[in-house]
Amino acid sequence: MHTYSEPSKLMSTSAPRLQSMANAIRVLSMDAVQAANSGHPGMPMGMADVATVLFSKFLKFDPAQPRWPDRDRFILSAGHGSMLIYSLLHLTGYEQPTIEDIKKFRQLHSVCAGHPENTELPGVECTTGPLGQGLAMSVGFALAERHLNGVFGDELVDHKTFVIAGDGCIMEGINHEAIGLAGHLKLGRLVVLWDDNRITIDGDTDLSTSEDVAARYAATGWHTVACDGHDFADIERAIAEAVADPRPSLVACRTIIGKGAPNKQGGHSVHGAPLGAAEIEAARAELGWTLPAFELPEEVVADWRAAGVPGAKAAAEWAQRLAAAPQGAEFSRRMAGQLPDLAEAEATFAAWLEGSQKVATRKASELALSVLTPVVPEMVGGSADLTGSNLTKTKATTDLSADDYSGRYVSYGIREFGMAAAMNGMALHGGILPYGGTFLVFSDYCRNAIRMSALQKAKVVYVLTHDSIGLGEDGPTHQPIEHVMSMRMIPNLEVFRPADVIETAECWMLALQNEGTPSVLALTRQNLPQLRKSGPNLSAKGAYRLIAAEAPRKVVLVATGSEVEIAAAVRDKLEAAGVGADVVSMPSMSRFYAQDAEYVADVLPANVLRVSIEAGTTFGWERVTGLEGLRFGIDSFGASAPADQLYDYFGLTAEKIAPQVLAAVTNN
Amino acid sequence: MHTYSEPSKLMSTSAPRLQSMANAIRVLSMDAVQAANSGHPGMPMGMADVATVLFSKFLKFDPAQPRWPDRDRFILSAGHGSMLIYSLLHLTGYEQPTIEDIKKFRQLHSVCAGHPENTELPGVECTTGPLGQGLAMSVGFALAERHLNGVFGDELVDHKTFVIAGDGCIMEGINHEAIGLAGHLKLGRLVVLWDDNRITIDGDTDLSTSEDVAARYAATGWHTVACDGHDFADIERAIAEAVADPRPSLVACRTIIGKGAPNKQGGHSVHGAPLGAAEIEAARAELGWTLPAFELPEEVVADWRAAGVPGAKAAAEWAQRLAAAPQGAEFSRRMAGQLPDLAEAEATFAAWLEGSQKVATRKASELALSVLTPVVPEMVGGSADLTGSNLTKTKATTDLSADDYSGRYVSYGIREFGMAAAMNGMALHGGILPYGGTFLVFSDYCRNAIRMSALQKAKVVYVLTHDSIGLGEDGPTHQPIEHVMSMRMIPNLEVFRPADVIETAECWMLALQNEGTPSVLALTRQNLPQLRKSGPNLSAKGAYRLIAAEAPRKVVLVATGSEVEIAAAVRDKLEAAGVGADVVSMPSMSRFYAQDAEYVADVLPANVLRVSIEAGTTFGWERVTGLEGLRFGIDSFGASAPADQLYDYFGLTAEKIAPQVLAAVTNN
Repeated sequence: MHTYSEPSKLMSTSAPRLQSMANAIRVLSMDAVQAANSGHPGMPMGMADVATVLFSKFLKFDPAQPRWPDRDRFILSAGHGSMLIYSLLHLTGYEQPTIEDIKKFRQLHSVCAGHPENTELPGVECTTGPLGQGLAMSVGFALAERHLNGVFGDELVDHKTFVIAGDGCIMEGINHEAIGLAGHLKLGRLVVLWDDNRITIDGDTDLSTSEDVAARYAATGWHTVACDGHDFADIERAIAEAVADPRPSLVACRTIIGKGAPNKQGGHSVHGAPLGAAEIEAARAELGWTLPAFELPEEVVADWRAAGVPGAKAAAEWAQRLAAAPQGAEFSRRMAGQLPDLAEAEATFAAWLEGSQKVATRKASELALSVLTPVVPEMVGGSADLTGSNLTKTKATTDLSADDYSGRYVSYGIREFGMAAAMNGMALHGGILPYGGTFLVFSDYCRNAIRMSALQKAKVVYVLTHDSIGLGEDGPTHQPIEHVMSMRMIPNLEVFRPADVIETAECWMLALQNEGTPSVLALTRQNLPQLRKSGPNLSAKGAYRLIAAEAPRKVVLVATGSEVEIAAAVRDKLEAAGVGADVVSMPSMSRFYAQDAEYVADVLPANVLRVSIEAGTTFGWERVTGLEGLRFGIDSFGASAPADQLYDYFGLTAEKIAPQVLAAVTNN
Repeated sequence: MHTYSEPSKLMSTSAPRLQSMANAIRVLSMDAVQAANSGHPGMPMGMADVATVLFSKFLKFDPAQPRWPDRDRFILSAGHGSMLIYSLLHLTGYEQPTIEDIKKFRQLHSVCAGHPENTELPGVECTTGPLGQGLAMSVGFALAERHLNGVFGDELVDHKTFVIAGDGCIMEGINHEAIGLAGHLKLGRLVVLWDDNRITIDGDTDLSTSEDVAARYAATGWHTVACDGHDFADIERAIAEAVADPRPSLVACRTIIGKGAPNKQGGHSVHGAPLGAAEIEAARAELGWTLPAFELPEEVVADWRAAGVPGAKAAAEWAQRLAAAPQGAEFSRRMAGQLPDLAEAEATFAAWLEGSQKVATRKASELALSVLTPVVPEMVGGSADLTGSNLTKTKATTDLSADDYSGRYVSYGIREFGMAAAMNGMALHGGILPYGGTFLVFSDYCRNAIRMSALQKAKVVYVLTHDSIGLGEDGPTHQPIEHVMSMRMIPNLEVFRPADVIETAECWMLALQNEGTPSVLALTRQNLPQLRKSGPNLSAKGAYRLIAAEAPRKVVLVATGSEVEIAAAVRDKLEAAGVGADVVSMPSMSRFYAQDAEYVADVLPANVLRVSIEAGTTFGWERVTGLEGLRFGIDSFGASAPADQLYDYFGLTAEKIAPQVLAAVTNN
């Protein structure tokens, strides 16, 4: 087994030298915040000592290769303390950020953004700031490591995940979901360093919490240990214990927020505002730091640069193993995010065109997954305890558990937010293409993690079933109204709502090919007829003419998902009345409007009445129909009843829609 | 102190009689689910024994007065088991549901909806189904009780809150937030009966969790006790212990899901599907139940009716105390949800018209609250640890804590979802008008609770600050893009985005007066000039002409919040070029479109170029501008930089907008 060389890399580094290294973080952080006149000095200064021990004695990294696959992952869950990670990356010798980047902290186009962004800096594993999600993503990182270890072995995959988390990360509800999952899956290579400074923005933590955090972690199967976060030897002892323990570990680091700022440290005023010139001067005196802002002592830089040397050596050895490994090419393919050949799957889907499968699109998704998962081994599925409803499990995706990490199906439990964040972590770790299911209405529970998929360009596929009043009797708490449309507004998120078995397979293919873009599949509970009998992947254009008018065209009916069938029935009535109508299926609105103007104008020609039909809010459909068109949908909450009665009650039947369209055409 | 009469009401009821009472729940539940061919029999059958003990020996209620203010609250957090509460309400003699209602379980227009809805049945305290939120709302109910007790004393307010929760409620992240808050606030009158059946939808709970639930609750300051959920004496012992303990209590009720269905009980198949005719017959045999569906034995009904008798007596005694209490009228006013006289506050706000206050709208909100909170004592504020940023605290709202429940400001901690759910519970308890703050972007964290405010018609005010890229350096993780527009799509939720200090006060007044409708106030971090100098509450129309064109009108500029100032500057440039332009401020889009057509057409006349300006997604603005208008906004994620630079970068300045509008006018 190729474990990373212990004992510690800089065991001989003396406490005074470590102190200088830590103080470099403190000074860089307070100076950068001061220069920006904005930011959070408290956390970087409070956790500087812990971070110094972590990076110099435990973390396996190679500054020259930020994306080396077998590096340890370091996640700053308390993302507001971004100057901590910028300082660490700079000091240890990463190409970015430069000292010039740090001088431009929080300025337009600086890679040193207010919160660390994985899209800006290769040394940043994930974007953090929304509290609790960094830690929850780290569970995904740690799970990805174990899964890939299960598939590729110790030779290629053998690293740890370290997290720095604050009180916010601990108090947020997602923490419960994340640590419950990590404890259950026994992710022993996950170590959380909790900045236990007993301060939140509003004041002392005892203003709002009385929790015994360690006891709670222990209750979910975690190892816990505490240390003095300003005593280097004690920090090292605690982290060493955490690393050695087979359970995931919480290290409670008792710290003083803003340590080094003599008049402000320990109070909540130091959390999120510049220290001010006077306090910065006092801190320099306190720390014995004589250099001006953004200048660093050579010997301190040298000590910091030494921290990455063992990692560079390990990376070189790893590269040799990769070159020699029979599975090396496959490992590299997965880590590069390159899909395998999908020609056979495409051929299978093409053969479906000749059939006539009347199935729910959730079932169609299961059928598509049964084709895709055997040939895309990096797909790791799961559900938030709705496997039998979301239909997310296939033969190829056997259970992933603490007993068998090589499995490909995660029982996430009733933890939607935790699931979504874990999937982000898995995708960002690399080597995994995660998908997971819940009911569409409960996208609300994980909405910010879906947003974070989009912001981080993480290829995650959300399988969101029971996508309208069509779910029937469960009623308004479970019936999405605003959800599909409101997710269409999230930048860089593609929302698919396929209309039948063919479009579902097409949308799955597109989702897999969406580089840097997460996808939502909104799928029905109820059966839908197969509407498509021919064509290449027409969903690839976002919308297309499914049925052309026969009589002179006066109407274009645009629908998505389960309402395309209704649109086709409306069209029949219109044609019977001598009114020509196209039916346009629009599985992806964003994709359609990304097509060239000629195509858009062909599908949605001028001088016709445009009508939208979607069993959700009509708000937003003006983009398609214009104000002069008609929009059929539901602008109230749903109701509890059998689905067909609800469609009638809410006026979404051909019988109720067609006369209104005819009247509008006649009036024009 | 007028505590509710212990010992138990039906201490003499024998176990066989209790068993028959419980079996009546089982049979009603399985028969109703079977008749609907849809629903969840497992939970009602599993928890029938516990519920029977609770209702017959502990719960204080008067079936003739479902809204009696001093009743104990019973909350079915595991709302999918709705037949449990429908059975209980029917059996104990509430007017609704009738047996005919139960026969129509899950049918259109039945009060017995798939999940219990407070808007359908007066005996249902809150709408449940979205997992974890019932329990989290119960924390609000329990907090409301203690607060009102602190204000009005034991004479008028002296009741408990009982909850039945399932594994879903326990696993969801919101559980951590809810119990953390309850433990910290020492809400000892809150008792959670956990249906510990070790089954979730996907299978055994050990598929996804290894948690020691009781230990976790204990870690947050809860008392815990366990019982055999099918042993009446043991259940009574455990609940009695829970009631006696000064801490909030978790009662782990070890149960068999679907108990009474001999071949299916104990497995996950019984959770969410009808038992089927054969199993129902077998269950009747098992339970010794000979009556056909929906017929009940007289003696069992008599025992159930007796359960409410002590409560009716207590209610009568309470009514006498209310009549005699000096604060009786004030108590009744608050419980009825009637606002006090606001004339003085309105006069204060009117006087602001003469001033010229350049403040952020979050600051304007603080100013408005400093006027309103002294005269509206039922307003209870709070923030999810962003008090100094949300500016939600006033002199009148002193701290509410375990030491002083009469305070009016809750430090909710870093618990957005828990805060929102607790506010729903407080509003639904009655007597409190809750408001609470967080950053707008973190509305994502509590989005489903905001939706549940709307669905439940709960008057809750969300103070959501830092409402755009105008927050500046914190960057894209903290900058809302889709949030304002996507919340406008939630039915029965009013989203306000005021433009200055005047509109902010107006919107606060409207929010307070929104009967049955929750409100969102989207507020800026950055300062905004006072644009309004006259007028009554113009925000009451949702949108209005703030500045009329001078040159012949060719353009209407519609903007909200911080962009109204920009629209005014654009207008100046247009007018200077001889192009007349109105500026319309639209603090509430939904309210505007609820006005009569004449008003809408006056504000948005035909044959002009309509232009929208809002620092968020442009998606949805087609409703206002039509496809031929122009929409200025941001359809990507934000960035980290000073606010003014961001406005320039994203093209939201008069300098960048005006030429495009001029060009469009010229081309037309």
